[in-house]
Amino acid sequence: MNQLDIHTITATLEGLEETIIFKLIDRAQFKANPLIYEAGKSDFEGTEGKESLFDLRLQYQERMDAQFGRFCVPEERPFCTNLPAPRRRVTIPPTGLRITDYNRVNLTAEIKKMYCIVLPTLCISGDDGQYGSSVEHDVYALQALSRRIHYGALYVAECKYQSNPGSYRTLIKEKDMDKLLPLLTREQVEEKILARVQKKVEQAQAGINTDVRRIVDPECILSIYREYIIPITKKGEILYLLHREREHDT
Amino acid sequence: MNQLDIHTITATLEGLEETIIFKLIDRAQFKANPLIYEAGKSDFEGTEGKESLFDLRLQYQERMDAQFGRFCVPEERPFCTNLPAPRRRVTIPPTGLRITDYNRVNLTAEIKKMYCIVLPTLCISGDDGQYGSSVEHDVYALQALSRRIHYGALYVAECKYQSNPGSYRTLIKEKDMDKLLPLLTREQVEEKILARVQKKVEQAQAGINTDVRRIVDPECILSIYREYIIPITKKGEILYLLHREREHDT
Repeated sequence: MNQLDIHTITATLEGLEETIIFKLIDRAQFKANPLIYEAGKSDFEGTEGKESLFDLRLQYQERMDAQFGRFCVPEERPFCTNLPAPRRRVTIPPTGLRITDYNRVNLTAEIKKMYCIVLPTLCISGDDGQYGSSVEHDVYALQALSRRIHYGALYVAECKYQSNPGSYRTLIKEKDMDKLLPLLTREQVEEKILARVQKKVEQAQAGINTDVRRIVDPECILSIYREYIIPITKKGEILYLLHREREHDT
Repeated sequence: MNQLDIHTITATLEGLEETIIFKLIDRAQFKANPLIYEAGKSDFEGTEGKESLFDLRLQYQERMDAQFGRFCVPEERPFCTNLPAPRRRVTIPPTGLRITDYNRVNLTAEIKKMYCIVLPTLCISGDDGQYGSSVEHDVYALQALSRRIHYGALYVAECKYQSNPGSYRTLIKEKDMDKLLPLLTREQVEEKILARVQKKVEQAQAGINTDVRRIVDPECILSIYREYIIPITKKGEILYLLHREREHDT
């Protein structure tokens, strides 16, 4: 059985920070464009016209991605259902995870909801007509957020379990969420992530000409991490632990 | 007739620099993975299996984008042919351009060729198995490069024409490329772009933990600008001028 390495896992999580930051900054170059999130305002013909442009873009993107095998990867959980099968053979190396159905830990509904809440804080309000570009960048940002959250939920939880199987085993058996949450919370690590993200957002925008590009307030991305990414990841860790398969226990 | 504003145009071009830089840096987090550019190595089933994974991803992406109306925008020129029609009504405000068929200025073949040349300088050589992610980021980087090059080719050329219609009219009539190229070359502007890009690449990576993410040598992205983006844009400007429609002349 593959032993997970906490250093590799936290390094991967840290490396995903730039991707999230870059994609949120790119989305913020367009206005909020509230119309693209409204059902029936996509300007698509036929039955698809009933949905929002945002939902349609997400569906089209995931139908494409599914055919390329994206959702064979544990941390890539789909936002949509009824996706086509992969059209290529995808070989995933042993993950070290103790869960067969990765969709037991699928937090996409919550991620999408949080994204729609934070969007008005990320973008300037109003409508610039750039609907196609806005939903394109929405989907890339959503996917980056989702990848980070699911990666943390799955791999960090398994690592924490392995570091202290006795305590986790008892709390999982009792489904004691009130005690699981503090056991897997590392406040010092969270503080470190937040400090690092703030610095990265500042540095990524240090050279920007404000006549040309909009600067995103680091506090905005910081609060997305603080209020959503970290708590949803921990919720995912609990989900993982509750569905962790005992038969494979070391 | 819409009068183009050179300040808005150069500001837009400058604003696209971060997007290109972010996307190239994101691609560089994966190894070169030469297999994904080889025909017949996509692992796709059926007739599609004859193509490379890179080409397939580009086709799937553009088929999706076409349905969302991407290629109604002048600076969004497709790499592929036989794309589906848009499934939504796309309204493009007056562009100020004097060309009806934007595909007269389609430099995608050249952009794709250059991308495949520079890729081994951008990425670490070798194979990390991350084929799906690599082609995904390839396509995003290609699209960002293409958008910048076509935007410059179309709008900057029209602006330059408007600033000196007499000289351009004569050279266009004589199809005198040898004189058109120096007339539209602004060496000082090019130097300024290069200095700015170098600084941006450095700053975008200033906070990066090198245990976690790969730093891209600014010279690599700089040389993409110097050797390819700027010259291909100028080639596109010439193409635009040669196909510029006289009947709309002011």
